[in-house]
Amino acid sequence: MKDAVTTHLPTYDDVIAAHARIAPHIHRTPVLTSHFLNELTGAELFFKCENFQKAGAFKVRGASNAVFGLDDAVAAKGVTTHSSGNHALSLAYAAGRRGIPCHVVMPRTAPEAKKAAVRGYGGTITECEPSTTSREAVFAEVHARTGADFVHPYNDPRVIAGQATCSRELMDQVEGLDAVIAPIGGGGMISGCCLTLSNIAPHVEIYAAEPEQADDAYRSFKAGHIIADDAPVTIADGLKVPLKENTWHFVSNHVTDIFTASEEEIIAAMKLTWQRMKIVMEPSCAVPLAAILKTPEAFRGKRVGVIITGGNVDLDTLPWM
Amino acid sequence: MKDAVTTHLPTYDDVIAAHARIAPHIHRTPVLTSHFLNELTGAELFFKCENFQKAGAFKVRGASNAVFGLDDAVAAKGVTTHSSGNHALSLAYAAGRRGIPCHVVMPRTAPEAKKAAVRGYGGTITECEPSTTSREAVFAEVHARTGADFVHPYNDPRVIAGQATCSRELMDQVEGLDAVIAPIGGGGMISGCCLTLSNIAPHVEIYAAEPEQADDAYRSFKAGHIIADDAPVTIADGLKVPLKENTWHFVSNHVTDIFTASEEEIIAAMKLTWQRMKIVMEPSCAVPLAAILKTPEAFRGKRVGVIITGGNVDLDTLPWM
Repeated sequence: MKDAVTTHLPTYDDVIAAHARIAPHIHRTPVLTSHFLNELTGAELFFKCENFQKAGAFKVRGASNAVFGLDDAVAAKGVTTHSSGNHALSLAYAAGRRGIPCHVVMPRTAPEAKKAAVRGYGGTITECEPSTTSREAVFAEVHARTGADFVHPYNDPRVIAGQATCSRELMDQVEGLDAVIAPIGGGGMISGCCLTLSNIAPHVEIYAAEPEQADDAYRSFKAGHIIADDAPVTIADGLKVPLKENTWHFVSNHVTDIFTASEEEIIAAMKLTWQRMKIVMEPSCAVPLAAILKTPEAFRGKRVGVIITGGNVDLDTLPWM
Repeated sequence: MKDAVTTHLPTYDDVIAAHARIAPHIHRTPVLTSHFLNELTGAELFFKCENFQKAGAFKVRGASNAVFGLDDAVAAKGVTTHSSGNHALSLAYAAGRRGIPCHVVMPRTAPEAKKAAVRGYGGTITECEPSTTSREAVFAEVHARTGADFVHPYNDPRVIAGQATCSRELMDQVEGLDAVIAPIGGGGMISGCCLTLSNIAPHVEIYAAEPEQADDAYRSFKAGHIIADDAPVTIADGLKVPLKENTWHFVSNHVTDIFTASEEEIIAAMKLTWQRMKIVMEPSCAVPLAAILKTPEAFRGKRVGVIITGGNVDLDTLPWM
């Protein structure tokens, strides 16, 4: 069953179908601008605010596309996944709306706010250690026991097609974009951007931003093949996972460049965004702004879409406190 | 000069004129909704997000109306005020845009973020002790020394007319509101709501929300005359000042009721809003939601506009940490 959903790549027709399928279950999120940040960077930045998305993150797009695309017989057994957080709670949200079970494997170190949200939507959590090895072992057991449909957090074509609806909205909301930048972990959002933009706006540059301390995508991109780390440590907890074959396809074929930022730069960009834009967003979302501030020459004078991927923060443990 | 601007009440024509005058200098802020908070309260809440306003608060509306309404000869000497924070930085912002001096008296205990913002806009700060008595004494000296035009933070009719543009926008953005609720300190925002709604939507109920620990407006409202405290202590630092004659006129004639909330209830409502709506807002802005959660029977089944007054928070000293 895993092979059945991972052996083909999604097309732009899949994106159009996904958008129609998930529209009743997601928000068309707003695009915000900041005069202050434009002055600071020399670019015109358009922030696509998926922190205001249902379940608090863009991941609900892909999860909803997978859940609402299941036929009734498969859906009856529910869905299952492993995730550092937002995919878990997005899948729980979508499954809850369809009224089917949802089994998720989460690292025991995942933010309490995200675990509480999964349970709030009716999901069942099995904890693992915070490493790829442990996650995959625990997940294999849960998957075998439940027989639920596996919705991989980013490599699943249904998920990539769902995430691609975000950049599709952004292109509709902002005219004349020169570039789009998003954080990269497993590559689901970036793959979605590649899928949409390569089809409807192939001139738009696509940049990915990654923590220096979890720079496997950066090193993969430079080496020309997937390099996976087992347990990277970064404040950007959504970006610790490695690329897989489907996301690598999009990254290697369509991404213009990948930039990295240090933990200090990520935290500073996060705090600056909270202060000036008055929005609550996760550390992962600050990596693109940190990259723009670190490499301004790549963005100066351009109209740049910046994906704010999610807002599910543990307010009791903010990284600058 | 103080008497010249405080001896008449603003009219709705003043509001229309103010709106045209300040439009180039302010944002038409968005109205956000939260399915979660609607379920929790049993009301339909429409949050008017002045935390996204220029200079981070609604106060820029009144300050801009005063600054841009001055004739050139008066403007040349600049403007001056005393303020616990947002009026100070809003006046500095407006004065900076017009290119005139701005002298503000702020309590030494005001949040560092607000002081830094005043200086960033080019304003000059003179510090006082955190009491009404000290503020007025220090201000008299600054006013006499500079000869600048006094823009009172809330009793000035130009300021009330400016703040009234906020509820005017809200009525344009949301149909069929049954009630509006806003925090009350000196009463500038509430007076603006009274001025607008009594003219264009007199059936809409107007509620004010106040910290229990700074409940002078509540006690004034019940007693039928102004009661002023000298130095109340509350986390809602924007709401420590007393009513004055012009704001008392509007409060006593047009407010439906005033509700209070404890410090714990304010902090809980603040954290809940950050968690669920993903917006950064000040403790003062949480008082209306705290009041709605405490007195749900006054709001259940109604369409309620909630004014989120500002977002200038010191991120290093959040009240739940």
